[in-house]
Amino acid sequence: MNKVYIGIDLGGTFIKVGCFDSQLKLLAKTSAPTQPEKDAKIVIENMARAAEKCVAEAGFSMADVAVVGLGCPGPARYSEGIIEAATNFPTFRNIPIRKMLSDRLGGKTIVFENDANVACFGEFAAGAGKDVDDMVFFTLGTGIGGGIVNKGKLLAGAGDNAAELGHIIIYPDGRLCNCGQRGCVEAYASATNTAKRATEAVEKGRPSSLKKVLDEKGEITCKDVYDHLKVDDKLAKEITDETAKALALVCINLLHTTEPKRIVFAGGMIAAGDVLLNRIKYYFNEHIWNLRKETVDIRFATLGEDAGIIGAAALAKQAAEGKLKSD
Amino acid sequence: MNKVYIGIDLGGTFIKVGCFDSQLKLLAKTSAPTQPEKDAKIVIENMARAAEKCVAEAGFSMADVAVVGLGCPGPARYSEGIIEAATNFPTFRNIPIRKMLSDRLGGKTIVFENDANVACFGEFAAGAGKDVDDMVFFTLGTGIGGGIVNKGKLLAGAGDNAAELGHIIIYPDGRLCNCGQRGCVEAYASATNTAKRATEAVEKGRPSSLKKVLDEKGEITCKDVYDHLKVDDKLAKEITDETAKALALVCINLLHTTEPKRIVFAGGMIAAGDVLLNRIKYYFNEHIWNLRKETVDIRFATLGEDAGIIGAAALAKQAAEGKLKSD
Repeated sequence: MNKVYIGIDLGGTFIKVGCFDSQLKLLAKTSAPTQPEKDAKIVIENMARAAEKCVAEAGFSMADVAVVGLGCPGPARYSEGIIEAATNFPTFRNIPIRKMLSDRLGGKTIVFENDANVACFGEFAAGAGKDVDDMVFFTLGTGIGGGIVNKGKLLAGAGDNAAELGHIIIYPDGRLCNCGQRGCVEAYASATNTAKRATEAVEKGRPSSLKKVLDEKGEITCKDVYDHLKVDDKLAKEITDETAKALALVCINLLHTTEPKRIVFAGGMIAAGDVLLNRIKYYFNEHIWNLRKETVDIRFATLGEDAGIIGAAALAKQAAEGKLKSD
Repeated sequence: MNKVYIGIDLGGTFIKVGCFDSQLKLLAKTSAPTQPEKDAKIVIENMARAAEKCVAEAGFSMADVAVVGLGCPGPARYSEGIIEAATNFPTFRNIPIRKMLSDRLGGKTIVFENDANVACFGEFAAGAGKDVDDMVFFTLGTGIGGGIVNKGKLLAGAGDNAAELGHIIIYPDGRLCNCGQRGCVEAYASATNTAKRATEAVEKGRPSSLKKVLDEKGEITCKDVYDHLKVDDKLAKEITDETAKALALVCINLLHTTEPKRIVFAGGMIAAGDVLLNRIKYYFNEHIWNLRKETVDIRFATLGEDAGIIGAAALAKQAAEGKLKSD
């Protein structure tokens, strides 16, 4: 009884599910289409069936599941278990997803968290942060998501909206961000905005080997920027440096705020590898104070796409161990 | 037995001590010269005698003291109870102050914290933050100190150096800060740097009624800047606005990081009153996102100079109630 944990990562296209033992070892994983355009009940049924299938594949029954962890995109009222209006789920309006999934799974306890926080907790529990107690996490995609672990627990904030780290302002009155602010780190250093800055520069006539890419494909991606670094394109280097500097500045600000032992970057953009990581470290060292030597350790994530299911299961395990507020 | 708490605020000139009951009601307070140039043993003896005197004045004996709280300037290794090299205490080098004071007071448990954190906790426990669980605190003086309360507890960080909020960078590559970084909020918005920016502008020939002050007194203080606001001096308004904007930006960044319910400003500069507070709120509203309505409540501190002794006693009480790690 109660031997395993389920981690569910609810994405806009696929539901990913993992079944883990008490040491967070992956026993089985599965995925299913989300069908986000359908009624919430159907999406929840899809999650429940995927969870049941995954547990069976691991050789267990639902009775063996201690707690289920669920990561979802926001905005949501996580402590109440309610999705308010997730961008990719047009029919989800104030859906009590935690209760609905729990009811469907025979009353199982469900731990419900923001997807960036869940990925953060996955890296903390089993990835790039598994040997520290205090960590900050950034995921670099269309936007920049964040998570903060303080003394082994996710920092929630007064209204479950802490760690909106992409919207830390680093250049006041700078580039307009999707959130309405100007100068957010996301407006410079997300994968999307790294690509966008390159496109804008080429369109303004800056000479670059990226012009051919824009002419042929109609767009420049973040991967193109890093590919053109390898051929010593000056613009690609400048764009990369601006991304790295923006990320370094936000690392310094986080160090002076929650003082993590480690800062972890995740998301597609980390495929750029050491060329990006080393520039982030360079700008960090160039801009950090000299009051005392700083030892914060900046690394890339190690779990890839499994961070979501691992993090959800790790949160489920933490809840089972009584560290979470009661449901 | 164990009916009262002692709060000690170790400053560079005076030691302040308060004796409080279990509801943190002040029963007696006293102060004594610090004699910071003397050996650490003498400073500790001064603290112990002031504590004994204060307890006696409140009508109790040291046997009635549950726990003693002590706030000190850093740098220190707070969780180890060691002052490394406090700026105003030339003879203090790696002094195990917590153990020395405890030994002198017959083995009393001493809670030891950074002075800005202690003042923060005072406002949280009994002042401008007493009705919330999550708070951020700034003290605006020579520098800018900070404190963060998360779910009722001070956020410590991986090495007891969280909440160095004065050194959040708001203008990359901007004004040089004493810490060696450029563009820290402290380099713009501390009382000292507010005055300094006014002095620099007048020296550069900017017309202002503050020129007379500089000519007559040889310096412009922060109070002068706010006084000259009242006579509609254009430069005084500009300097105030730059201070308010810098503080507003750092409020936004903290909101997106630890998500406090309230942000509290303390220090001599808040004597400026609503003229400053309203400008901070104005710039906050001008620069915050429009993803959702934000309700963070920005206020000035209410405890004045007693925040240190109250905060130290409140930390002592929290420790006595078992919320703190064991000594």
